[in-house]
Amino acid sequence: ILGCSQAETECTTRRCLAQMLISKEYLSSPQSENCTLLVDVPLIEYETLSVVSIFFPHTPQRILPKLIQDMKELHLMSRLQVTIAWVDPELAWNTSVHQFEKLILPVDKVWTPYISIENGKSSMEHDSPDLVVYSNGTVGHKVIIIAEVNCGINLFNYPFAFDVCPVGLKSTPPNECGISIKVDQVRLADSSRGDWETEEVKLGKKREDRNFIDVSLRIRYTNPFITLLLPTILIMVADIVSGALPLQGGERNSFKVTLVLSFTMFLNILTNVLPGESKCSPVIRIHFCVCQVLMVISMLVSMLLTRVSQDGLDFFTSFFKRPAPQNAEDNKENEDAGEKRTDSE
Amino acid sequence: ILGCSQAETECTTRRCLAQMLISKEYLSSPQSENCTLLVDVPLIEYETLSVVSIFFPHTPQRILPKLIQDMKELHLMSRLQVTIAWVDPELAWNTSVHQFEKLILPVDKVWTPYISIENGKSSMEHDSPDLVVYSNGTVGHKVIIIAEVNCGINLFNYPFAFDVCPVGLKSTPPNECGISIKVDQVRLADSSRGDWETEEVKLGKKREDRNFIDVSLRIRYTNPFITLLLPTILIMVADIVSGALPLQGGERNSFKVTLVLSFTMFLNILTNVLPGESKCSPVIRIHFCVCQVLMVISMLVSMLLTRVSQDGLDFFTSFFKRPAPQNAEDNKENEDAGEKRTDSE
Amino acid sequence: ILGCSQAETECTTRRCLAQMLISKEYLSSPQSENCTLLVDVPLIEYETLSVVSIFFPHTPQRILPKLIQDMKELHLMSRLQVTIAWVDPELAWNTSVHQFEKLILPVDKVWTPYISIENGKSSMEHDSPDLVVYSNGTVGHKVIIIAEVNCGINLFNYPFAFDVCPVGLKSTPPNECGISIKVDQVRLADSSRGDWETEEVKLGKKREDRNFIDVSLRIRYTNPFITLLLPTILIMVADIVSGALPLQGGERNSFKVTLVLSFTMFLNILTNVLPGESKCSPVIRIHFCVCQVLMVISMLVSMLLTRVSQDGLDFFTSFFKRPAPQNAEDNKENEDAGEKRTDSE
Amino acid sequence: ILGCSQAETECTTRRCLAQMLISKEYLSSPQSENCTLLVDVPLIEYETLSVVSIFFPHTPQRILPKLIQDMKELHLMSRLQVTIAWVDPELAWNTSVHQFEKLILPVDKVWTPYISIENGKSSMEHDSPDLVVYSNGTVGHKVIIIAEVNCGINLFNYPFAFDVCPVGLKSTPPNECGISIKVDQVRLADSSRGDWETEEVKLGKKREDRNFIDVSLRIRYTNPFITLLLPTILIMVADIVSGALPLQGGERNSFKVTLVLSFTMFLNILTNVLPGESKCSPVIRIHFCVCQVLMVISMLVSMLLTRVSQDGLDFFTSFFKRPAPQNAEDNKENEDAGEKRTDSE
Amino acid sequence: ILGCSQAETECTTRRCLAQMLISKEYLSSPQSENCTLLVDVPLIEYETLSVVSIFFPHTPQRILPKLIQDMKELHLMSRLQVTIAWVDPELAWNTSVHQFEKLILPVDKVWTPYISIENGKSSMEHDSPDLVVYSNGTVGHKVIIIAEVNCGINLFNYPFAFDVCPVGLKSTPPNECGISIKVDQVRLADSSRGDWETEEVKLGKKREDRNFIDVSLRIRYTNPFITLLLPTILIMVADIVSGALPLQGGERNSFKVTLVLSFTMFLNILTNVLPGESKCSPVIRIHFCVCQVLMVISMLVSMLLTRVSQDGLDFFTSFFKRPAPQNAEDNKENEDAGEKRTDSE
Repeated sequence: ILGCSQAETECTTRRCLAQMLISKEYLSSPQSENCTLLVDVPLIEYETLSVVSIFFPHTPQRILPKLIQDMKELHLMSRLQVTIAWVDPELAWNTSVHQFEKLILPVDKVWTPYISIENGKSSMEHDSPDLVVYSNGTVGHKVIIIAEVNCGINLFNYPFAFDVCPVGLKSTPPNECGISIKVDQVRLADSSRGDWETEEVKLGKKREDRNFIDVSLRIRYTNPFITLLLPTILIMVADIVSGALPLQGGERNSFKVTLVLSFTMFLNILTNVLPGESKCSPVIRIHFCVCQVLMVISMLVSMLLTRVSQDGLDFFTSFFKRPAPQNAEDNKENEDAGEKRTDSE
Repeated sequence: ILGCSQAETECTTRRCLAQMLISKEYLSSPQSENCTLLVDVPLIEYETLSVVSIFFPHTPQRILPKLIQDMKELHLMSRLQVTIAWVDPELAWNTSVHQFEKLILPVDKVWTPYISIENGKSSMEHDSPDLVVYSNGTVGHKVIIIAEVNCGINLFNYPFAFDVCPVGLKSTPPNECGISIKVDQVRLADSSRGDWETEEVKLGKKREDRNFIDVSLRIRYTNPFITLLLPTILIMVADIVSGALPLQGGERNSFKVTLVLSFTMFLNILTNVLPGESKCSPVIRIHFCVCQVLMVISMLVSMLLTRVSQDGLDFFTSFFKRPAPQNAEDNKENEDAGEKRTDSE
Repeated sequence: ILGCSQAETECTTRRCLAQMLISKEYLSSPQSENCTLLVDVPLIEYETLSVVSIFFPHTPQRILPKLIQDMKELHLMSRLQVTIAWVDPELAWNTSVHQFEKLILPVDKVWTPYISIENGKSSMEHDSPDLVVYSNGTVGHKVIIIAEVNCGINLFNYPFAFDVCPVGLKSTPPNECGISIKVDQVRLADSSRGDWETEEVKLGKKREDRNFIDVSLRIRYTNPFITLLLPTILIMVADIVSGALPLQGGERNSFKVTLVLSFTMFLNILTNVLPGESKCSPVIRIHFCVCQVLMVISMLVSMLLTRVSQDGLDFFTSFFKRPAPQNAEDNKENEDAGEKRTDSE
Repeated sequence: ILGCSQAETECTTRRCLAQMLISKEYLSSPQSENCTLLVDVPLIEYETLSVVSIFFPHTPQRILPKLIQDMKELHLMSRLQVTIAWVDPELAWNTSVHQFEKLILPVDKVWTPYISIENGKSSMEHDSPDLVVYSNGTVGHKVIIIAEVNCGINLFNYPFAFDVCPVGLKSTPPNECGISIKVDQVRLADSSRGDWETEEVKLGKKREDRNFIDVSLRIRYTNPFITLLLPTILIMVADIVSGALPLQGGERNSFKVTLVLSFTMFLNILTNVLPGESKCSPVIRIHFCVCQVLMVISMLVSMLLTRVSQDGLDFFTSFFKRPAPQNAEDNKENEDAGEKRTDSE
Repeated sequence: ILGCSQAETECTTRRCLAQMLISKEYLSSPQSENCTLLVDVPLIEYETLSVVSIFFPHTPQRILPKLIQDMKELHLMSRLQVTIAWVDPELAWNTSVHQFEKLILPVDKVWTPYISIENGKSSMEHDSPDLVVYSNGTVGHKVIIIAEVNCGINLFNYPFAFDVCPVGLKSTPPNECGISIKVDQVRLADSSRGDWETEEVKLGKKREDRNFIDVSLRIRYTNPFITLLLPTILIMVADIVSGALPLQGGERNSFKVTLVLSFTMFLNILTNVLPGESKCSPVIRIHFCVCQVLMVISMLVSMLLTRVSQDGLDFFTSFFKRPAPQNAEDNKENEDAGEKRTDSE
């Protein structure tokens, strides 16, 4: 009723015209002849938030976050600041009557397109609660899309990995009702986050109804090198050099045991940290298991050698002969006693 | 008032008709004669998000997430992208008057069915803020259901487990008011997540009022094998081979102590990680306890053997005889002194 | 205006009547003569979600979840699926005019009672966005209550604990305005969650204005037994048996040190896991402290015995006599030298 | 329109009057002559939720919770159940026309005051979705305030700490528009939570425009004593008694090393747990550092003594003289050889 | 309709005028001639919440929080309490008709500016649900901004770091529609939080369309010193002093092994805690790696020296000569036997 009365009295201010447009409640999509609305995207500012191995479902509204340790799939979390523009003919006005080019409207009083991601999950929110409408009905706005893109990053060479991950903006297929997106330019906003470095973004091969942004990712290997590779290399070197330790005093054995246990503890922590429980899992995982088995074998051999160096090969032959019920210890003591007797003579 | 005035002037555009339908505010359910609305589901795209052992209650709105360590029940977190279609007679229009087949309406201005899960908790959200209405009143839409399904997965053979978990879509019983769901097809969207692999989904035995999706799950055993079984096997082997170490120097004892303590620490971590505190708990849990007790006994026997190998059986006989107030140490020292005397003779 | 025009034309369909009832906007409570509305509860399906030691405040909307380590009060998290029915006279209709028994209304267009918990914090949400209204004004609905009940569970015998925890549904006192709840039946939905088993639920002693549900809880002791008691028992046994180790070589000391340190580490982890920092704290906590102190004393005695077995009681007498400035080491070396001299004679 | 028609027909029921009051949409504050509204608070039921060292910002709506390890400031999380009453003259009715004393209105259809905390962050929510209005316009309601109070708790004597923390309810200054709060009574609801015990609450010195609740807090020292002090005392005692161990066999050194490493590990865990990284940090922190340095020095001295006891003071004198290029080991071997020669003579 | 009837009858109370202003629904921005609205900011109370290394995306509504361990970028979490004032001409009234200077309006019934951060992500919320309007149309309000500012803090000298981080308030560029912000004063509210101390805030170099707040941050080095530097210094000192331990008994080796393993474990924990995986990463990280490599080399050299001290240089020469098939152990045993023979002569 208020809107009507304002509409009748000719509006002379921007505010009045804005209130008039609000009162018309154009909350449905502007629908063209072919039921498709063209949404122009002059610029996307892309930013990689993280390459996470923890997954969070799509619905914050009902089921809440969880600290899932078993989920180690790599997901690309991205933030896209998308500048969009579209034409809503009902929001146009006659500049001869209302003599100004543009005005501001609250974003929740007019229809806005919903931009989402093709290959993954995304959420859109408005950068500002106000948008700008031009006299010809063109609406200019900025939205922010937080996307979780499913792109199987190849981690075979982890921690030396590089891959290109496509991020697809969803458009309605040509013969259906919906919005059609046309992206003009993509720019990399910030490349310096986390363990993964975003090297480049560019518009991928454009299909009719999809717009792909190709994101080039490279892992920063210093951190995994220090936490994963350096300790294992040092432990392995220590294991090899421990061959210089004397066998008899039990020194070499206890040293090797400590190494093996450290490595086991280390491997446990490591398996929880390592990404990529997928089909193409990192080769480093197998490498570590082989290392552990080798170290245990090295330890066991060292133990047996200790025995052999003390008792000679009697230990092994006693398995087969067993002529005397005396065990190895007795043998040795007898020998010691014998030596002593010869000593004291 | 605006809607009325539009309704009077014959609408010629999609937008005008959409605004007219919105203004009628049909937010109540379209209710047929028998008070049941048939909702057709041409396709469900099923995806297993995770098989979690951490539980989150149904209400994000009031009570918040928690990192509950004691909750180790396995729950199947699923994501179902459900294509739905139903007929809302009030949204139909005469194509001779309005000459187009379909139009777009905002999803929060018309009634939409609420799809939920029978055996568990679920939340529904709309895939897009717009839906398509056809001239005969048929409404086409896509919704996403995040479900937490209670299905007691059999973990007896963990980490080698396989089970089929039914996911039931809730329909109203025939003689009550509500919606009746008819599922046509189920498809597996993505099977490669986490420790559990979804092998197959298919429509289960259809009852009158429920639609079951049978989800076949198989655990990926490489990761639990490396973190759970490999270390225990290696520790047990080391314990057995440690019998080759000499008793006298205390070497074997200290080695066994280290092993037992490592195993205890390991078991503690493991018990927190192991799933399935339910009726059918994994047999691996009992196996580990038995291993620990065996290792401790092996250690204790080794200690006693050390004593016996030094003092002979005097240690035990002194428990029963006790003829002399001298303790075992004195005995031994006396013997040592005796030996020395004979040495120096 | 639309509602009015519909009301004038006699409604013949359910949809039309529903739209008419919605347009009346009966969002205030149906208020009887004595200002109290009777809400009938034919069935409560009770489910224990967890018995948590982590607390989360009542307001998710403003202050967010936290991982508070210091809060170890036990709280009973419950989920109650409550079937409710009440009479809203304004929603009744004349079945001679509108010839159907029941219809569906959106839940946010009519008034619904808010059910909450007396002794704790709770949140209510609707099981479905639609509810059923009968021609006599009776409204049938289902709500889900997530409650965090404060009931001081007796943990004195932890990990062997059993207690009954009352859950009270809040009703308005008789002489005030509000709702009066009458519960008919309580059923246990699922008893198999987590470390605590819900054995039984039953309606407790009904007071005038409260309805108590008595929940019988019993702890599952296998998991705490394996993680808490088994390791301590094994460590204590190892400590006792270590008396069989010889004193001189330092073997017994180093063994005892390792045990004490393991136990200390273990106790630290354990104190963070143990529930019940309340008045009636578990007796196991004191038991562990006593064990630790005993083990340390055992270690210290073992150390002193080592000294005594080497130097005799000179070590102690030197504290009192102090005739010679020579320290114990010198004494011993002199004695050794003396022995050697006698050896070499 | 519906409201108007109801207002014209004289309302005879509570429901009708309630609907009439709702239709007037009195969502703005009842504003008196001096622009200040008196809100009476007959009772505050105070409850300390926790004394947390993890901080969460004020806005759950945009930026989400985090597990910040670096934030160890102590904050008092409180829950205040506040009974409030105020007069809204527009909601009054003539009891001669409408013959009842009170009625129920939905809380979101009338104006309600927003109670917040002066010294900290708080959020308010309604205890019930309905409130009671009396015929003279008095509105009675209950709200729940979750507050995070900034009060620098004195932790100098931690874990034996006691402090009084004032919680201030925000009132508008007298000469400004807003609400003026008058608290009558404060009651302690539950004192048994977590590590901190709330001993007493009382109304503090009332200033004109603020109401302070003085909360007396005392730490429960049993838990920090067991986890913090007991292990350190035991480790220190063990370090002192280890002086009884013999030097030569390397036993004392290895024992002290183990102690120092345990203490270091312990100190690391402890520093993350200890509260109060503020100006008045607990004296226990400095104490622990001093202990660690002392233990390391004790270990180093023990190492040097080992050397000295073997080689005499030659080790030190060789630093100054250096007459011979032979290192200490050679010296010792020569001496040993010399001794043997004299032995064998 | 109600609003209209009130407008006709001359309002004499504040409440009536407020209701009238509300009924006009001025939810669009007050738009001046040049399409820019000046928002005056008399005071900003700045508070540093934390300097976090854990990142949380901008959208709580859809994608939920995560505990990302790989993200160690430092972000400045700030809380700005911003007092704002602007003129909304439509909210002005004639004080000759309505004889009062100011009134209170609900904040969601009028337009409010949205203040955000230029270099980072921010969310704004209202400090109070009511705001004050003066008779000339000036609106006074307070908002709270939680901002996550991206400012690459220089961590090269960590844990001794100091940097100035600019926080920019976003203003619309001069020739576009929007709001123009003019900040008058900035005040530091609370400087005592967490590991970082905010030393000073001041208004930075004002550009035309941006207002920078320069925040001076200094790290509190006591905590990282105790947890990071002190243990490493002590371990290094112990490593050096361990040169005093005798080589032969294996004591020095086992000591060094323990040290190296402790350091490795320590380094692992430390790498997860250390901030700044960015371009300018802390020099302490390289320092620790160098330390670890040096300690391992020191350990390996110690092992080899053990061998050399036992067997002389035969161990090395045997690599080159290999004249005899006898291994080093045999050699040594022969020598021992030889010595014994000479002994017993």
